[in-house]
Amino acid sequence: MSRGLFVVFEGGEGAGKSTQVGLLCDWLAETGRPHLRTFEPGDTAVGRQIRGIVLDPATGDLAPKAESLLYAADKAHHLQTVVRPALARGEVVVCDRYVDSMLAYQGAGRVLDLAEVEHIARWATDDLRPDLTVLLDGDPTELMGGIDVRDRIEAAGDDFHRTVRDHFRELAGRDPERYLVLPARDSRDAVAAAVRTRVAGLLDS
Amino acid sequence: MSRGLFVVFEGGEGAGKSTQVGLLCDWLAETGRPHLRTFEPGDTAVGRQIRGIVLDPATGDLAPKAESLLYAADKAHHLQTVVRPALARGEVVVCDRYVDSMLAYQGAGRVLDLAEVEHIARWATDDLRPDLTVLLDGDPTELMGGIDVRDRIEAAGDDFHRTVRDHFRELAGRDPERYLVLPARDSRDAVAAAVRTRVAGLLDS
Repeated sequence: MSRGLFVVFEGGEGAGKSTQVGLLCDWLAETGRPHLRTFEPGDTAVGRQIRGIVLDPATGDLAPKAESLLYAADKAHHLQTVVRPALARGEVVVCDRYVDSMLAYQGAGRVLDLAEVEHIARWATDDLRPDLTVLLDGDPTELMGGIDVRDRIEAAGDDFHRTVRDHFRELAGRDPERYLVLPARDSRDAVAAAVRTRVAGLLDS
Repeated sequence: MSRGLFVVFEGGEGAGKSTQVGLLCDWLAETGRPHLRTFEPGDTAVGRQIRGIVLDPATGDLAPKAESLLYAADKAHHLQTVVRPALARGEVVVCDRYVDSMLAYQGAGRVLDLAEVEHIARWATDDLRPDLTVLLDGDPTELMGGIDVRDRIEAAGDDFHRTVRDHFRELAGRDPERYLVLPARDSRDAVAAAVRTRVAGLLDS
């Protein structure tokens, strides 16, 4: 095959994205499917430096437009140097966060024109859309109860995280065929099984 | 007075921008005029990290869109945290490179749609235009003859730098009243005197 499959996991803090990314990759490995596990922001040498700027509490008052542009730069570099080459090799790319996270978090900040932020994010990523986005959806207060050490984003407050959740759901509603929305508080195994079923269907089609 | 003056120096490598920025600031100091000397990219804590990513030869193949977005992020942060506050205090802001440099260098790279790069640069800077841009114009081969240690941008080749020059001149031609184009190989003192005359006129008006 000449083209891979692009699967993205989205959701708020504590929703279990990295656990589910890991379980999907375990299953792909068991079934002998070439795949790549990755994440945004930061999964390149350039991206790690960008992530360091954005998430470091010492950065202080980062201008909102600068924050958006840094996230977009990370995405542009990650897409060109990691995601596209793997897709071209026919691999399943499993990515923890992508454009929706940028839009949901920047949109929740309410400072910038979200249409403009989306325009820039789409430009940065050559408007490449995932074949499937799994949204792990749940009440942020409940999901974040287990998180003790909070970085700059996680410390932003409950209203902020509720708005992030609303944005994720709205994005899923715009293009339902490319989304699988699952309750984040369902059991780990139930979520993993639902994801596998959907991905298996895409791999067979 | 409630609003300052925004003066930008543009031009290729070796054109003498930082020398002229220094001479203008010396004169402003002598005449008791509150001013701020600054530069792009990099003259903030965030910007220094961004500049490090873009200019470090170890970065290797930075995706072109990522490079543009990083420069735009630097500009957004610099504008909000340095330039605007100084202008609001009524100061003369003297800046070594601004939006034109981003457009000239990115445009010379010929990889990206320049109209899109300009759209992003204008968004990043809230479309704030300098009151005066001094373009130090000259033949790049001649101007760069004195530079031994070349960073990633300076090492890009003569054709590249000739295209950069053409872009600068074209940008000046679009809005001639806001530009002062001077031959970079004129004497340091002759250039400085021409700049002072123009700036003095703007300060008196």
